[in-house]
Amino acid sequence: MEVSTEKRQFVEHLQAFRNILGESFVFTDEESLNNYAHDETENLHFLPDIVLKPRTAEELAATMKICNAHKIPVTPRGAGTGLSGGALPHLGGVLVSFERMNSIDIDERNLQVTVEPGVITEVLQNAVKEKGLFYPPDPSSRGSCFIGGNVAENSGGPKAVKYGVVKDYVLNLQVVLPTGEIIWTGANVLKNSTGYNLTQLMVGSEGTLGLVTKIVLKLLPHPTYELLMLVPFNNLEKAGEAVSAIFRAGFTPSALELVEINALKIVSSFVDSTVVPVTDDMEAHLIIEVDGNNMDVLMQEMEAIAELLTQFDCGEIFFADDAQQKAELWKLRRRVAEAVKLDGYTIEEDTVVPRAALPALIRGVKELGKTHHFKVVCYGHAGDGNLHIRIKKEGNIYSLNNPNVIPALRALFELVKKLGGTISGEHGIGLIQKEYMGIMFEDMQLELMRGIKRTFDPNNILNSGKIFDQK
Amino acid sequence: MEVSTEKRQFVEHLQAFRNILGESFVFTDEESLNNYAHDETENLHFLPDIVLKPRTAEELAATMKICNAHKIPVTPRGAGTGLSGGALPHLGGVLVSFERMNSIDIDERNLQVTVEPGVITEVLQNAVKEKGLFYPPDPSSRGSCFIGGNVAENSGGPKAVKYGVVKDYVLNLQVVLPTGEIIWTGANVLKNSTGYNLTQLMVGSEGTLGLVTKIVLKLLPHPTYELLMLVPFNNLEKAGEAVSAIFRAGFTPSALELVEINALKIVSSFVDSTVVPVTDDMEAHLIIEVDGNNMDVLMQEMEAIAELLTQFDCGEIFFADDAQQKAELWKLRRRVAEAVKLDGYTIEEDTVVPRAALPALIRGVKELGKTHHFKVVCYGHAGDGNLHIRIKKEGNIYSLNNPNVIPALRALFELVKKLGGTISGEHGIGLIQKEYMGIMFEDMQLELMRGIKRTFDPNNILNSGKIFDQK
Repeated sequence: MEVSTEKRQFVEHLQAFRNILGESFVFTDEESLNNYAHDETENLHFLPDIVLKPRTAEELAATMKICNAHKIPVTPRGAGTGLSGGALPHLGGVLVSFERMNSIDIDERNLQVTVEPGVITEVLQNAVKEKGLFYPPDPSSRGSCFIGGNVAENSGGPKAVKYGVVKDYVLNLQVVLPTGEIIWTGANVLKNSTGYNLTQLMVGSEGTLGLVTKIVLKLLPHPTYELLMLVPFNNLEKAGEAVSAIFRAGFTPSALELVEINALKIVSSFVDSTVVPVTDDMEAHLIIEVDGNNMDVLMQEMEAIAELLTQFDCGEIFFADDAQQKAELWKLRRRVAEAVKLDGYTIEEDTVVPRAALPALIRGVKELGKTHHFKVVCYGHAGDGNLHIRIKKEGNIYSLNNPNVIPALRALFELVKKLGGTISGEHGIGLIQKEYMGIMFEDMQLELMRGIKRTFDPNNILNSGKIFDQK
Repeated sequence: MEVSTEKRQFVEHLQAFRNILGESFVFTDEESLNNYAHDETENLHFLPDIVLKPRTAEELAATMKICNAHKIPVTPRGAGTGLSGGALPHLGGVLVSFERMNSIDIDERNLQVTVEPGVITEVLQNAVKEKGLFYPPDPSSRGSCFIGGNVAENSGGPKAVKYGVVKDYVLNLQVVLPTGEIIWTGANVLKNSTGYNLTQLMVGSEGTLGLVTKIVLKLLPHPTYELLMLVPFNNLEKAGEAVSAIFRAGFTPSALELVEINALKIVSSFVDSTVVPVTDDMEAHLIIEVDGNNMDVLMQEMEAIAELLTQFDCGEIFFADDAQQKAELWKLRRRVAEAVKLDGYTIEEDTVVPRAALPALIRGVKELGKTHHFKVVCYGHAGDGNLHIRIKKEGNIYSLNNPNVIPALRALFELVKKLGGTISGEHGIGLIQKEYMGIMFEDMQLELMRGIKRTFDPNNILNSGKIFDQK
């Protein structure tokens, strides 16, 4: 029997990849392929043809040259914790997993770290903390997500309100281009006005422009103390108003999170926690943290914020007394997404608006829920104006292009746009939000993005069809 | 006599520009052309053919459509304070001055400001300070430079060490593209993972990708107090070592500037100041500022830093007692460049290295001075590793491609590269550094930059020949 050309080519490529990476790091067995067929985006499943696990940029570059020459689709993947389908191999082809690239090299003299993309964010944070240093951005998934994925999505997390997001820490990147060249995007310096900012262009480009193989991050001295309080509000919109007021009064908390009561109830039961007394007359809670190096100053700041909040119809404030209470409170916050998803709130949106527009967004979302017949819970990084909106719609398992969901999401994103916001604050566009890009951008911006993509990836092999479709 | 085609076309374009902007805002007289023929880069003079002063993005867009259709070179210009020749109309054609676009719209509710490019940076700072708000980045030229130019160069200034540079404050930009379309690059939000970061790509692109017509900046609450001290060091390298030690000890000063003794002597005499006792046994001074909202904490911090510095062979520390002393000290620092330039140090470089490499850079620069027979003074934002190096070479008035200067500069930049740094921290590449881009980047990165440029400016009309030459 004749072997088809396609099949013969596949076997040839496979052998070439094995020659480069070694037999043990090229996978085609069903179990492996299945392991890399999904991420944390609901109900989406796409099998790659081959999984590669390179150890070095040079190995990866050699494999990319083959993929580029033969126009084989390539999907880069961190830990698969993404919420926009960015790591899904929806075109088959090669999936590159970075799990073997996981070194950490701390430069204490310069307060910098060079880290490979396969390091778990929390592992990185702990490693630098041991040296008294601080890498602030930590998504809720910090215990499992990879720093490479964080760079791809420009992740945020609760500390972003004071300390900024991933882009504010990335100084320089080593990148394997889709064409197989290896470049550094900049230099390991705090200021740089030397040509176009390829570093910042790469951050948040969701693995469509290049494969990041080394990340140089700026670090800070670790703050000595932090104080945490939980503030219940009788009214959700008032909670939103309070957020804006805190900043206008000159405070900069190190975290300012909002959790709607339904979400709090669901997660409290999910993690079996009783640390927070949940009463039915409350609509939302704010979690407020301040940090710094002087305990007296922090106490004063916390008291002043608490005093300010009494103007916003808040209930009795709960001050976390010790490390354990703080940990439990953060556990509640970090596991909200997981808990409400299991409760049927499967669609997660990642809207962000100017901070003062939060009450209008919250009000609008509730109205949309009535019009479009969905249940909704809100939570997220309110201090940044970044509200995660989880939607539950009977019988509506999430799927791409589900005609039953699209009108509701379009209406939501049009509201966000009207409020001066945008459709993703930290999760990225990936596969599932790309059809809504037209709400945020006109053709011209998308054409510029397509032109940039063509410059980096002339054969359109790298994570193609994410963020936008190439024309 | 026949009128040449070229001349006839010029007259036609002129009339078209006048129809769009009005008679009074299109200039071709010799005095006007001369006014826009130079910036603060030494001894360079290029006459534009026409100067345009649009008031709105729409007017500018209409003029750009004409320039694009007829491939007329366009040079955007802020206040002309640039040090890399970015605003020089070296190809003639149209020069766009933004001086009439100077509105400021403060959004106190969101701690944001929307500002037009022709606003003087210090005017912007004062306007937001009146509302208790803070826009930190301020180059030494803040009293005359435009915020639009600051965005183009990704400027820094003394506060960058704690508060970051321009790119850390730009949330969104309105841009007129070379092809005449008007776009917004993002949204007025603190976090954004919605497509490629066109905002960050535009910041620092030196007016080669688009003409920025509105800038949305993040603001901070203005700190209440600041303390300032001046620390003399017997040894220049020790001063460099002290810089790194301050950060490693966990301090984050709001400014950490270094001024070499020669520069201090020259500027002291230039501004006729006696605030600083300059003695001959000192080689350099550090200017150190801390800021915050609690005076006791600041006093403790200042004392702790002073205590730490005794390990680095420093002299008697001078604490600025009052607002006047602080102002005088800052005046000294801000006018160094002007003073040493008048003293013959005409070539200014803007090197930046990882902070701990400062002593090696300082040592290397002094050695290069001996080898290449130039005198040198160093000063700058030492906390960022950003050292301005001023060179004086007998008989060597600065000119492009001066064969007498190039080998010295190449040697300097190769040293900077070897130390992990780069050739511009905040001044940009512009016209005069572009031939050194090959030291920092390989062909591949430059090809990516050229591809991005082609995407934005297919006819290569906008500030063409700055940063790199298009192929």
